[in-house]
Parts: sequence; structure tokens; C-alpha cells
Amino acid sequence: MTSPPRPTLADVTRGRILYGGDYNPEQWPESVRREDVALMREAGVNLATVGVFSWARLEPRPGERDFGWLDRVLDLLHAGGIGVCLATPTASPPPWMGARHPETLPRDETGAVVWYGSRNHFCASSPVYRDHALRITADLADRYGDHPALRLWHVNNEYGTACWCDVTAAHFRRWLRDRYGSLDALNDAWGTAFWSQRYGDWEEIIPPRRAQYMVNPTQELDFRRFTSDALLECFTAERDALVERTPRIPVTTNFMPLFVGQNGWTWAEREDVVSVDLYPDPADPERDDGAAWGALVQDLTRSQARGPWLLMEQAAGPVNWRGVNHPRPEGLTRLWSLQAVARGADGICFFQWRQSRQGSEKFHSGMVSHAGPRGRTFRQVRQLGADLERLGALTGSPVTARAAVLHDWNAWWATLSAGRPSNLLTYERPLRAWHRALWESHLTCDFAHPESGLEDYALIAVPHLYLLTDAALDNLASYVRGGGTLVCGFFTGVVDTDDRVREGGVDARLREVLGIGTVHEWWPLDEGKVQPLASCGDDIAEGAVGTLWREDFETLPGTETVAAYRGGELGGRPAITRHPFGDGTAWYLSTLPDPAALRALLSRAAGEAGLRPPLPGLPTGVEAVRRGGRLFLLNHRREPATVPLPAPATDELTGRRHEHTITLGRHGAAVLREAPPA
Amino acid sequence: MTSPPRPTLADVTRGRILYGGDYNPEQWPESVRREDVALMREAGVNLATVGVFSWARLEPRPGERDFGWLDRVLDLLHAGGIGVCLATPTASPPPWMGARHPETLPRDETGAVVWYGSRNHFCASSPVYRDHALRITADLADRYGDHPALRLWHVNNEYGTACWCDVTAAHFRRWLRDRYGSLDALNDAWGTAFWSQRYGDWEEIIPPRRAQYMVNPTQELDFRRFTSDALLECFTAERDALVERTPRIPVTTNFMPLFVGQNGWTWAEREDVVSVDLYPDPADPERDDGAAWGALVQDLTRSQARGPWLLMEQAAGPVNWRGVNHPRPEGLTRLWSLQAVARGADGICFFQWRQSRQGSEKFHSGMVSHAGPRGRTFRQVRQLGADLERLGALTGSPVTARAAVLHDWNAWWATLSAGRPSNLLTYERPLRAWHRALWESHLTCDFAHPESGLEDYALIAVPHLYLLTDAALDNLASYVRGGGTLVCGFFTGVVDTDDRVREGGVDARLREVLGIGTVHEWWPLDEGKVQPLASCGDDIAEGAVGTLWREDFETLPGTETVAAYRGGELGGRPAITRHPFGDGTAWYLSTLPDPAALRALLSRAAGEAGLRPPLPGLPTGVEAVRRGGRLFLLNHRREPATVPLPAPATDELTGRRHEHTITLGRHGAAVLREAPPA
Amino acid sequence: MTSPPRPTLADVTRGRILYGGDYNPEQWPESVRREDVALMREAGVNLATVGVFSWARLEPRPGERDFGWLDRVLDLLHAGGIGVCLATPTASPPPWMGARHPETLPRDETGAVVWYGSRNHFCASSPVYRDHALRITADLADRYGDHPALRLWHVNNEYGTACWCDVTAAHFRRWLRDRYGSLDALNDAWGTAFWSQRYGDWEEIIPPRRAQYMVNPTQELDFRRFTSDALLECFTAERDALVERTPRIPVTTNFMPLFVGQNGWTWAEREDVVSVDLYPDPADPERDDGAAWGALVQDLTRSQARGPWLLMEQAAGPVNWRGVNHPRPEGLTRLWSLQAVARGADGICFFQWRQSRQGSEKFHSGMVSHAGPRGRTFRQVRQLGADLERLGALTGSPVTARAAVLHDWNAWWATLSAGRPSNLLTYERPLRAWHRALWESHLTCDFAHPESGLEDYALIAVPHLYLLTDAALDNLASYVRGGGTLVCGFFTGVVDTDDRVREGGVDARLREVLGIGTVHEWWPLDEGKVQPLASCGDDIAEGAVGTLWREDFETLPGTETVAAYRGGELGGRPAITRHPFGDGTAWYLSTLPDPAALRALLSRAAGEAGLRPPLPGLPTGVEAVRRGGRLFLLNHRREPATVPLPAPATDELTGRRHEHTITLGRHGAAVLREAPPA
Repeated sequence: MTSPPRPTLADVTRGRILYGGDYNPEQWPESVRREDVALMREAGVNLATVGVFSWARLEPRPGERDFGWLDRVLDLLHAGGIGVCLATPTASPPPWMGARHPETLPRDETGAVVWYGSRNHFCASSPVYRDHALRITADLADRYGDHPALRLWHVNNEYGTACWCDVTAAHFRRWLRDRYGSLDALNDAWGTAFWSQRYGDWEEIIPPRRAQYMVNPTQELDFRRFTSDALLECFTAERDALVERTPRIPVTTNFMPLFVGQNGWTWAEREDVVSVDLYPDPADPERDDGAAWGALVQDLTRSQARGPWLLMEQAAGPVNWRGVNHPRPEGLTRLWSLQAVARGADGICFFQWRQSRQGSEKFHSGMVSHAGPRGRTFRQVRQLGADLERLGALTGSPVTARAAVLHDWNAWWATLSAGRPSNLLTYERPLRAWHRALWESHLTCDFAHPESGLEDYALIAVPHLYLLTDAALDNLASYVRGGGTLVCGFFTGVVDTDDRVREGGVDARLREVLGIGTVHEWWPLDEGKVQPLASCGDDIAEGAVGTLWREDFETLPGTETVAAYRGGELGGRPAITRHPFGDGTAWYLSTLPDPAALRALLSRAAGEAGLRPPLPGLPTGVEAVRRGGRLFLLNHRREPATVPLPAPATDELTGRRHEHTITLGRHGAAVLREAPPA
Repeated sequence: MTSPPRPTLADVTRGRILYGGDYNPEQWPESVRREDVALMREAGVNLATVGVFSWARLEPRPGERDFGWLDRVLDLLHAGGIGVCLATPTASPPPWMGARHPETLPRDETGAVVWYGSRNHFCASSPVYRDHALRITADLADRYGDHPALRLWHVNNEYGTACWCDVTAAHFRRWLRDRYGSLDALNDAWGTAFWSQRYGDWEEIIPPRRAQYMVNPTQELDFRRFTSDALLECFTAERDALVERTPRIPVTTNFMPLFVGQNGWTWAEREDVVSVDLYPDPADPERDDGAAWGALVQDLTRSQARGPWLLMEQAAGPVNWRGVNHPRPEGLTRLWSLQAVARGADGICFFQWRQSRQGSEKFHSGMVSHAGPRGRTFRQVRQLGADLERLGALTGSPVTARAAVLHDWNAWWATLSAGRPSNLLTYERPLRAWHRALWESHLTCDFAHPESGLEDYALIAVPHLYLLTDAALDNLASYVRGGGTLVCGFFTGVVDTDDRVREGGVDARLREVLGIGTVHEWWPLDEGKVQPLASCGDDIAEGAVGTLWREDFETLPGTETVAAYRGGELGGRPAITRHPFGDGTAWYLSTLPDPAALRALLSRAAGEAGLRPPLPGLPTGVEAVRRGGRLFLLNHRREPATVPLPAPATDELTGRRHEHTITLGRHGAAVLREAPPA
Repeated sequence: MTSPPRPTLADVTRGRILYGGDYNPEQWPESVRREDVALMREAGVNLATVGVFSWARLEPRPGERDFGWLDRVLDLLHAGGIGVCLATPTASPPPWMGARHPETLPRDETGAVVWYGSRNHFCASSPVYRDHALRITADLADRYGDHPALRLWHVNNEYGTACWCDVTAAHFRRWLRDRYGSLDALNDAWGTAFWSQRYGDWEEIIPPRRAQYMVNPTQELDFRRFTSDALLECFTAERDALVERTPRIPVTTNFMPLFVGQNGWTWAEREDVVSVDLYPDPADPERDDGAAWGALVQDLTRSQARGPWLLMEQAAGPVNWRGVNHPRPEGLTRLWSLQAVARGADGICFFQWRQSRQGSEKFHSGMVSHAGPRGRTFRQVRQLGADLERLGALTGSPVTARAAVLHDWNAWWATLSAGRPSNLLTYERPLRAWHRALWESHLTCDFAHPESGLEDYALIAVPHLYLLTDAALDNLASYVRGGGTLVCGFFTGVVDTDDRVREGGVDARLREVLGIGTVHEWWPLDEGKVQPLASCGDDIAEGAVGTLWREDFETLPGTETVAAYRGGELGGRPAITRHPFGDGTAWYLSTLPDPAALRALLSRAAGEAGLRPPLPGLPTGVEAVRRGGRLFLLNHRREPATVPLPAPATDELTGRRHEHTITLGRHGAAVLREAPPA
């Protein structure tokens, strides 16, 4: 007996780009709700996310249910032609749960209780919490499973609370027994021979709590794995309750962007629809940073989804959780929304529909801001709705990338322990720098798990994967041997799955692929310090420098030194190398080159692998992405930009035809249907 | 039956400026005390504050009393002609209280106990603490109520300890029941519909403890109100015990300057005498900052007192709680003391008489420093005593101000929650900048509560009142309508008394007064960033800039744009406006102008309102204030300054007559009796 | 009956410089151990420290013993001719101890438990911990006392964990009873009259826990004394158990360098061998800082040992606990090791032999690094072994210094309380600046306790001793009276042993010696601020400045003002003075001069006292030290340096003879046997 296939995002979109946002009508008198629906229709909204934080309203006292108000909300939305993404309210338990069951409250590393009064105050290991969460979820599914407005289930919200309490400790021990089977295996994996940490009894094991000095790094790594899994158990339990009752409604939970707390590859597999919340900073001087960050998150989310995905939350204006919260300059919300569609989004939603007047997020913008329907924000929201309406044909279409950046949460987690060569080397820093270099070079890329099939990619970039499993190492070797191009960053392949250093400091298989011999020393750079590089050919410009990291290593015969260190202790030693291996090529970057040098190196490697931008001659700041037979052009600068077109094309946003060039205004965008090649 | 009128500060001064300080003879052998009294007489001291930290000495074991040493101290002071300000010792309970009654110790937000070993370690909600405090207070009053040296009661010391313990939680719930009557009202006020925070039972409510994310801001606001009230209950209970026993002795408690933890308006109403502790930083580069800060605190304290007040603590030299504690350059103690008298003080006291040789404050200066009577400090103390002796005629006289700055602790508290547009916008920053601009323009001002009668003021300045009640808004409108001039700063009138955002983002009544329409966006500036301004007339100089904050708002017809934003996203939009309303005028400053521009704008508004400095042509750095028919001239700079006099005048400090000018030396001061106008 | 004399370091060295490191074979399969011994022999290793973190391996369950593996390790080392420094494993109790006896875990100031999972997680006051520690210690001594490889006992590791728990509180009270005898004496010493802290019962006294404000400084001072003593009790208990069982094996415990947590004078007296761990930062810009820091620690350790000492731990490459961990440039490990020998070390050891592949210190270097025997690190390790082999004749020989720097942990601890004139004035800052000035002037110095016999020193330097006992003050006066030269830094002699300020702010005896009268004010400088100085002679150069501190004080007749303050509040007042007293001279430096000025002043004082460098004309960056008839020349710079020789000499490292000069390469060193004077 096989299960029926699960529904997908296409069952939600039904041929229209989804458009809408979180809708929390319980904050408002019923009179406001009719205006809400009218304004939603005016703005082209077709999806409202309801109930994310409604638990205390739905279950005012333990076991009671108050569904009447929600019945009316769903009926009203349905009457207005607006679909509903219905949330389980389990991210924020009512005060009565913490007051009556204090053991459901998390504790931090020091043992301090994390109280209610905010949100996300539940211990994922608590059976009491889980039981209450499943019961309200089941009751919601029973009541609204057949409601005609229901399109999508939204489970919980931004899962991410870690806990160090005793209930968690017992759960962690069960998880470790499953992972290791025996205490000997655990002791071996954790290296407890060091510092007298050998465990003689499972009951001795605790989460990594406040200690006198550095805590065992594998204990920390496993605790991060466990925490992700414990939260995932909460998710899958709710999902199963929903699937059982409403098999035709897909299920999602909204991720935080590039969030460390969940293993995004594992989580995405358990969802029908992958969705993400994305809040780039619109602060003026980092304008391009916002777009680069957006592109990274969108590429990652598309890769997790293996196809179209849903932008569950963004802001129509400022957020309220940064130090200084900048509004969005004119045009930016539209530009960034179209960027998401270009990179695979089939839906553009906001947190939240109507800006709150009370509570912790009242200065977080809404689609209807405090200024109301006559305000600047709502004007832009209406305009965006009209734009998206024109792009419905794109739903379901893929984005094809021939390059991939390898990414793995296990490697990320392993970098978070103390006691590494440099605390300036975060996991994200090289990852973001490399992705940005590819993005600025107009080389659309996916993200991929290092053990996944890579054969369809012409170029694989590994900015920094400190931890690589045996399977991943074999996978990389076989990829290059088969003709692929690998560009590998420093301090990669250093430890195995248990954070155990590979013999020789870097795995021998990887060194063979890269053509490097003895690795003598990691030689990190202080903040703000640079290391001049000497190009051995013309790949990188005079004046190029390395940052953040250096290494003292030997090359093997047959390895080309592309650039060497110039001056200092490492003067004359190889910095960047290129090595033919099997039918492919492997590059090694033992430093983080400055942005221009990094772009140049990645462009050369990509060019050798046969990759090039969608258009030649793209001006700086203009992003170009192909999706579903359309070419998206996105101007991230304040200055207008003119893009030469190889062939005439029509902008689907305006219906206008452009012959030789198209000029994009400040933050302007175009979605070109290209003429078939002559 | 009406109560007899309460005694006042005049009952303490009896025609002499009070002069003295905290006197803690229990730190010294009895032999030192005779020298103390002799030196006090030499210095002109007439008031000694005794017993502030004597609880453990007075009650060495629970219920015991040891008054003998204090009898002798009071007798000795009286014999020397020195009045006594007698303190209840309740700020610092003896170790036995914390050891025997650990529930009297505060707990912080994380639940950690705040132990004894320092001071101010009591939970204001603890019945055990309160009971012990009242008993020692009553016994002191019974024993010393008739002592001839007794002039003033000093209750506790710098009330300010907050607590998050369970006893406090129960007290907080009682306070909330009183405030709201019903849980529905509380849920509505706190906006608990957001984030599933609805309370179903009073017992669920707790203080805002350590949480996973931002805590409900109205819960925080109410907890700040509650904490001020809980401390005030402690004060009033002690006061009542004193008043009952010694009806002719006035009662005070010493405030910290511009202290966030007490609602200063409410507290001052409960005191017979308002007193404050003031410690400006004498560090060289901020010399004027110290004077500006002093002026602000003095204006506020005078306004709380509605007349003369008492400077209860200042330092004769360095303090010991800053990072680097600078001594006071020659002349500064005299200058700053005379500034206090100029701004309404009828007493100048120090912490403390004799510098400690042990304990946490042994490097806090005293009137008799470690260098002893031959030291530089005591020389200056003697000189100041002689100066003050000459000014006794001023006691009881008011300072008349025709401008007022509005200030409210509720607005301050509401700005302290997280999640606002910019965390750079503190409550104090615009308040201090505006007051300083008025002070530098020689425009003496009061502080006033926004609901108080404003009709006697020609100019009302509102630097930043994020929270304004309905009554305050009506008060402001009626003030302008009646012909007043209002200068209103940004992000004002945004929320109501429950921190609920007003419709449209700013209260509609206030927008009508100011002549502004839709408010589209708050547009804060990053630290160090400035926004050029374009003056539409000649009010502000070329090159003027805004800092900290900007707004995107519409003006209504009839509103004059005084200055516009120049360049950037807001280029060309109004920045500073002026609007005739009723018989008055309302200015709006949507940014914080640089100091010169702010002075120019406030001076113009003040000038239109008919206000001008006490003297024309005052040199920079010279403060001029009128009190009781005298003109105080205070030179805050190291360079001598010459002030032109419109008419001959006599300096009461020297008895010298000055015809056309008077020259003040470095940090020099003069108190001029002006000749009647010819 | 007298005890037999204790064995000494000479019993360990037996005529060879010790060379080796921590050896933790339990991290490795037995197969690796044979390679270890072979490599040790290749490198000239003759001492391995074993068992430091082996408790959980030796006692896998409470009361069990597993010695077999350790038997094999000792036999194997012995067979290879390598001596063993055997550690008691008590620095890191096994997890079962914390799990079964949570009262053995420390608690921090806030009451939070300090959990196991790292190391050093024991409460020194816990009888349960102490009992278990003694039992494993005794069993180790019983089993290995007669093992032929055993050379030295290594007790615990870097003692330093403080604890604030209730068990500690009771222990602290017992310690206080011993110190004070009566509560009255304690109340007097602590100055509890201030802030109502008087204790009425011993049971009320607690460690200085988290409080509302500054905690009583004498309570803090005593708690630091107590913590050092409580840890010392742990050490001496283990030592006694070892001495009883193995009277011929000397005992050490490894100190952290200039570590605040132990009273190093008291501790060193209880050891047979004094050893220290030393990890200078090899970061490029601070190259000389590393050498200066090393010289300081080496001088201090030699002074604690009163003769040769053991460098127990250094790093062969990078450590892993700094923010950025730099490897050591070529030659630095050799240079710094020879510096230690020059300054009295009879042994050079590393943490650790083989770099870990797991656990918290896997990126801390080892003598055999991850790169293995072919790596750069092991190559340098072998070379150093060969160099040290040539210097065996030096073992046991002293280093003679005719200058001493006074240092006392009590003074250090007293400076750690809050509420002093400037928190920029740490204890170490002047200490390090003064020692560095002496080091750069090639004036080899000891450290000495201020109460110790000083008559053999021509120059005594007191950079900053805030606390001086009566005995120390008398000692200093008698030293100068007897003809000595004292150079005394600011804010010295301010408090007595109880942190009670001396009358007049500085002890009268000291003021008499220094020739200073009233001290009016401490006048600290802000960070980065300087105070110009005016030289009254030609001692310091034009442009010299003071930093950190200034004072306003009077000189007595007969006191020479060497330099005065120039400009500012103190312009024209004395800054640096010189006073003939008895047969000697006393200098006073009331500010911290810039490095060149400080060198000039100390050189003049030293010159007057008859001290000069070992060689004239030493180039900058070349250190010269005499030991055992050899002259060590050490080039700390990257540039080669040529040193003129007064007479021909032979370099023992190379066997080469040098006539008129010797040239040292980058980081080069020479050990010259000087020809006898002609």
C-alpha cells in the first residue's frame, strides 16, 4: 500500500502568484475586518495567513475552545475571494501553560527560566507542551479541514528555541543512545579522553551548560543536531496530525533565512511547501548588500524546495528589531519582490497585513501602515499586486542553475565551538562573500548538500566546509574525476562528522584532488589586516590582497600556483592553486581574496567550465536572471541603467517592446519575454 | 476636620542658606567628632545629615536598639549650633535581615538573588522589610522628635531598587487589579491579542522577566509604574509614621537627578521638601556639559518643588563611581553651588562631611578630604561657606521662568521598551539637547507636566513626548489656541497611556495643532549620520543639519515650511514647520537640528513669544539667571569674561559696585543687586 | 626530630636541561605510542608529563581503578630513556562526580552552577571533592612511587577556580574566624560601619555575591585571599600525601603566568620545584611585547623559585584560546626557549607532545603537529632539542640581579575592587611598563616581596603598590636609610592590610622617605590623554609626557623636583621628585612617563646606584643576560643585528669563536663563553 502523492505549491497557487500576508484580525474590532477585505481586494491580495499567534484566543483556558471568531474570519475572507493559509498557533503557548506547567518553559545555559510574556517560550522536549500542541492542531484540522478558503497549513512559526533544562537533558540522552548505540561509541566520538570527560553512565550526560572554560565541541555539535531534531519532531507530529485529517492540503513551516538553528536540508524534506521569511536591511549604504543577501536566501530556499517556493514574510516598510530601522526607499519593495519571483518564488507575502497598534511589533510595518490606506506604503502595495497579477504564467516554472555552492548545517554548527584558529572566521563570512561574487558575476547558482548528486553542475563552489563526511569527500573526488570544476576555499575538509581532525590536518582524499601536500600551519589574519597577493598569470589584478586567513602548505607536482603570497612570513608560498584531477579541475583558495579578485577567480573558473552571464555587458548593479522563458532585469542602484539587448524583447510588466536597449529607472525592473533566436 | 498645614523648607532654613553634608560619625572614634564640630563651625556648616546608613548600628540584632551613640552625636551637633537632618536608615538593611529573611532580598529579571554586602538590597514589596523599616522609623521619631537639633527628616536614600521576585509578582497583580478592575481591561490595555498573551487568570501575571524575545511593552510600562509606586508606598508609610509623631518637622527623600526609576511628579507631591543629589562630571572637555546638566537638574527639581529646594548631595571633589574620576578644577565647586542657588536652591550640601577611610566610597571625596583640614578641598569648602552666608536673604525667593519644557516619566518609561524605530532615540537625548539650547540662549525655563496648567508660560517646548494622554493633548491644543507658542519635537503624541499607537501614527488633535497631515514614515538616521537642511527663510544657517531622526509627512494648507530636507530620500520634503493655530503658533521639528540650528529656532520662537535673555550681549559660557531681585552671573569657562552691564550694580559676594562692565575670572561668579531702572 | 631535606629541581635535571611536554597517550591507540617514543628520542626529549587529565580513565566509576594502561605508558617511556613527570589528575573530576555529587560543582557570583563538560569544575571547599582527590592521589603514589621513570610530581593543573556556593561560604567563615578571632575585629577591618554592613553573627557572612551596587572591598579582598588559600589547601593536602609516600620525588604544580588567583609567594614556598606555563602572543606587531612579557614572567618565576625553575608549558606553534591565534614565525620558539634558559629555566616543556585530534584544544599546537613529523613544527622541535643538549652545564646555576621590582598579590587584589579613582589604573599596567623599561635598558631584575630582605639590591623599583603593610613600609624606609635607591610609583602606600586608607592619603612613613607633604588630589588621566612634563634638568627629553595618572601634592624642603607638570590644572606642580633620605635616595614618579622617559629615569637612578648593562652599545631589540658564566644574546627583531664584543668569546651553540663582534640573524641567539679579562 503506497501513500497518495502529497499536494504541492501548485495546489495553492492555481496559476496566480500568491500575494498577501499575515492577518491577525483578533487585534481589531470586527468592524475593521470588512475594510480589511475590501482593501485586500483593492491590492490584489489572494492569500491571508491566519492564526499564527491565536492560541490564547482559541483556548482561553486549558481545554476550552473558542472558534466562533475564527469561523467568521474565514467565512469573510472566503466571501472576498481570498484564500487562507491557516496556522497552528503553537509557537506561542498561552500564559496559562507556563503558569500551570512551568516545566514547559525553556531554561538557558545558566539554568535561568525563559519566561512567558514574549513568544517562542516552549521547551521542545516537553511532553506537556507537545500534548497540548497536538490537541489544538487536531481540533483546528477537524474544524477547518473542509473550509473552502483553506489552501495551506502553516505549522508553528520560525521554530528556533533551544533549551537546556532537565527534561531536555533526558531527551538528549535518548537521542544520543539512538545515534551512538553504546557509551563507548559516544566517548570515542566526543573524544572524552581529553580533559577527563569520559562518561561511565548515560545518566551523567547533560546538555552543554555554563562551564568554567571551553565545553567539549562534539557535545556542542551533537546538542545543535539534537535541538534541530527535537524541534523537527514537534513539526512532524503536527504535520502528521494535519496530513491524517486533510490529505489534500499541503503543509509548510516558515524558515528564518540562513538560520543556524534548523538543519534546513532535513527540514525541507518533511514539508510539502518550502517557505521563508526574508528581511534585508534597506539602509542606504548597504543597498546592494540587501539585494545580495536576498539573492542568497532565495537561491538557498529554491534549492531546499527543489523548485518554486513561497516568500512567507517580508516587510512592506521598516522592521522594528534592528538598532536603527530604516524604511524602504521608493521602489525597493517592488524590486526585491520581483527578485524573489525571478529566483523561484511563487508567492510574495508580508508580515503583516495591518500594522499593529499594540504589542512588541507595533513599529514593524504592515501592508496597511499606521498612515492607513492613503499612506505611501499601501500605494506601493497596490502597485506590486498589479505587477504580480501579470506574472501568473510563471508559477511552477523552474530556475536553472549550472553552478552550485555547497552548504551544510553540520559544517556550520561545528564552526561555532570555541577554540578554533580564528574567531573571525565565521561560517557565513566566506559563504556570503563567495555567493556575492557569483551573484555580481551574474552566475545564477543553486545551493547543494555536499553528499548530493552534483553531476548536473558545471561548477561547484565550496567557500568553507570545515566538516566534511567521508561520503561528501568521495562525492567531491568523484565529481572532479568525472570532469567537474571544483573551487574550494580554505579550512575545508578539516574534520570528520564527529569534529575529529583528519590526519594531516586536511583529509588526504581532498588534498589529492586539490594537489596539495603537507599543510604546515593555519595562519589567520587579524581583523582589518590584508596579505598582498602576487598573481602568477593575469587572473587577478595588481594590488589584489587576501583577507581573514592564510595557510602555509605544500603543493604537489602538477599543481599550478595561480597566485602566491607576497611579503611577510609566507612571502613566496602558494596562495591560490589549480590542479587538473581526472577529467576535471580543482582550485584551492587558501585565503579570502578581496571582492574583485574573488570575482575574477570565480569567473575564470566558471568560464573554463563553460558558464557565462545571461547577457553580455550588464552594467554594475543590474541583476539578470532567467526563469520560465523570461529574463528578469533588476536595477539595484539609485541611478538609471541602460542594458543592451541582443534581440528585441517585450516587458511583461508594461507590455512595451524594446529593440536594442532597455533603460531601467532607479530601482527599476523588467520581465522580458525574449524573441526566439533568429 | 482639616489637617494642619505641613511645615516647609522655610522652617528648616530660617533665613540662612543651608550648608553641610552627610555626617557618618559611626565610622570614626568619638575623639574625631569634636574636631568635626569645630571644623564645621569654621566652614560655616549649619546642617548635618545623620544616620543614613546606620541601621545595623542602631539595631545590631533584630529588635534591639542602640541609640546611645546617636544621642551623643545629636547633642554634640546641637551644642555646636548645627542643625540635624535625621535619616531613617532603611536604604540599607543590616545583614541579619537578608540572612534571616532571604525573601526580603530582591531578585533580578533572571531570578538571581541580589545579595547584601553592598546597599539598597531590599524588595520594596516585602512585608517583612516594610515592617522592620516602619518599626525603626517609629522608634527614631519617638526618640528624637523633640531633640532641639532636629530640623528635617530624610527618609531612606535614593530609592531605586527594582525586584522581580514572587512576592513582587503578587504585589504587582494587586496593583494591576486596582488599575484595571478587570482582566478584560488589562488584556485590552496590554494588547495581549498579539503573540497569544491573553491572560485568563490574575494569577498568571508576572513581572517582565527574562524571555526569549521582546517582552510586551505595556507590561513593561506598567511594571515601571508599579515599581515607582511600590517604592513610593515605602516612602509614604515612613513619612506617615514621622508626620504622626513629629508634625512640625518637614520630610524629604533625596532624589537622584533625572532618575528614571521614580515618577518625580508624583513623588514630589508627597514630600514637604524636595531635595536632589547632583554629581556633574568635572572632566575637562565636558566642562560646559557639567554646567548644562546641572542647570537641567536644578530647573527640574525647582519645578518639582514649585519653589525653593535643597541640594542634598554633591561632591566637594571627585566621585568614585565613574570610569575615571576627575577632581574639580579650582573654583568649580563654588561656581556650581552658586548656580544651584541661582536656580532656586535654599541649601547646598555634600556627600559627605569627612571622607571615609574604609568601604566602597573611600575614594569619593568629602568636605574634609584624606588630605585633612590643610588640604585644598577644605580650603574651598570654607570659602564657599563664607559666600553662602552672604546670600541668606535669598532664601524662600522664587525663580521666575516664562518658558517650560514638558516632561513626563510615563513617556520616558514607554520609550524604554525594545522594538521602536531607532534605539538611538533615547528619551534623554532630545530633552538634554533642547534644554541645553535654551540654557545657552539664556532663556530660563521650568519643567512642567503635560497635563498641568501652562497658561503662565509664553513658550512651551516639547522635545520628545512619545506618550501623551488625552488630557495632555487637549491641554496642549487649548494652550496654543489660547495664544501660546508651542515648539514640538518629533515622534511625539504617538501612543496613548497604554502605549497604543494613535490612529494615523500621531494623535489627530496634535496633528491639527501642528498643521500636519498624513505621517508616512519615521525615517531615523544612523549614529554619526547627518541630514542637510535647507532653510526656507533665514532662520537657520547655511550648512545646518538634522541628526538622529527624520520623518516623511504631509503639511496641511496654512502650514509654513521653515526648513526642508536637502538631498537623499527625503530631499525637498518638509523638515521644520510653523503653523498658526487659534491665537497661537505651533512649531514642529521632525529632526534634531545641530546645536546652533536648534538654538536659532528656539530663539526665534521665543522671540516671537516675547522672551529674551536677562542681559543683552552675554559672552559665550556666561550664564545669567535672575532670582529674588539678584542677577547671578556665572562664568563656566577657564578664560575670564567681561559682561556689559546696562546699569551699575553691586556684587553681594564682594560688596563691590560695578559701573559699566563686570569681569568674571576663570569660573568666577557674581550676584548683582541691580540698581532700580533710572 | 627534623624532616630530611626535600629533593629539588637538581634531582630532576641530573645535569641536563629538561626537554619535553605533556603527554596524553590515552587519546591515541597504543600503536601510536611506539612512534611517540621514537620521535621523542629523535627530538632529544627527556621528560614527559603524564596523567594531567586522566582521572576519568583511571577511575571510570567511583572507587574503581584502571592503572594497566598507565603502567604500560610508564614502562614504555622508561624503556625509551624518558623520565616521567607524573600528574595527579585532580584538575578535572570525572562526570560521575558532578552527576552524583552536584555539591562538588562550583557556583558563580550569581548562584549559577558551573557544570562539568569542560575542566576545572570543582569547588575547592568541597569535602567530597577533596576526599576523592586525596584517594586517587594516594593510590597513584602507592602504585608508581617506585617506578624508575618517575622524576617529578605534578599536582593538579593551573589551580584557579573560584566558587561562591554555600559550602564555600561556610569555609570562608571558618577562614575569617581564624584570621580575625572576633566579629568586632572583622567589622573593624571591613569597615562595616559604612552602609550598615555590621555583622552580628558569623553565620551572616557570605562570599561577595551579586549585589545591587559596589560590594565591600575588604570583603572582596579577603575572599580573594581565602580563595587562594582554599586552593592551596587542596595542593598541600595532595603534596603531603605524596611526600609521605615518595619522600625523594620533588613536587610541583604549574602556575599560570602572573596569575591573579594564587598568592604566588606563599604557594612557591610550599613547592619543591617552581614551574610555570607561558604563552606569549607571537602576533607580528607585538613581537617585542611577547619577549618583554616572557622576560617578566621568567624573572618572577625565578624569584619565586629563588633559583632555577621549570618552564612546564609553552606552545610549539599557535594556541587556540585567543581571538586570532597566530603561529610562531620561524625561529621564535628557539629564541623564546633560550630566553627562558638565560633567565633561569632548567627545563623547557610544551603543552603538548602530540596535537589532539579531538576535544577543545585540537587547534592548540603540539610538538608533533597535525602535519606530523614532516611538518615545520617538528623540524623546529628537533633543532631546539639539539641546542638545549649543548647547555646542560648551565643547570643549577643562578642568575644574579642587582635590581628588584616589588610585587605583592595582596596589593594586586586590593586594586580589583570597584570605586577607585580610575579603572584604567590596573595593577599590571605600571608593573609591565616599568619592567619593560628595565628590560629594554638591559638591567636584569628580580621580583621581591615588599617585606623581604632587600639589602642585596642596589635598586628597588615599586611601580605601584596601592596596599603596603606596616612591615613593608618599615622595610622600605630602612632600605633607603641604609643607602639603597628606591624608585617609587604613584598611588603607592595608600591603604593598609585591610584596605583602610592611611592618614593623609599616603602613609606618613613613606611620605617622609619620599620627601612629600600633603597629597591634595589624585588626578587621573582619561584613556589616550597625555600630560606634558617639563624636565628641571636634562633627565628626560623635550616632549616627554605623563600618562594614566597625575597627582597634586606638596614637596618637603630638600626634595628635588626632577620634572614638573606643564600646562593644565597642574601646570608648574611637581611630577617627579628625588629625595636624599638617610644614606640613600628615594624617587617619586606621580605619573606614568612615556616609555622613553621612563627608561631615562630608571637608567639615571640605576646609574647613580652603580648598575649598568652587561655590554655597552647593545642594539635595540637585542637582549643580553648573564647566567652561569655565559652571556646570552637574543635578537628579538626580524632584522639581523651586530653586537660589539669587548673581548673574544665562543658561542656554545655553534662552537664558533667571535673576535670583535657577533652578528645575530633574524631571531638569532648566541650563548657566549667569555674569555677571562686580559
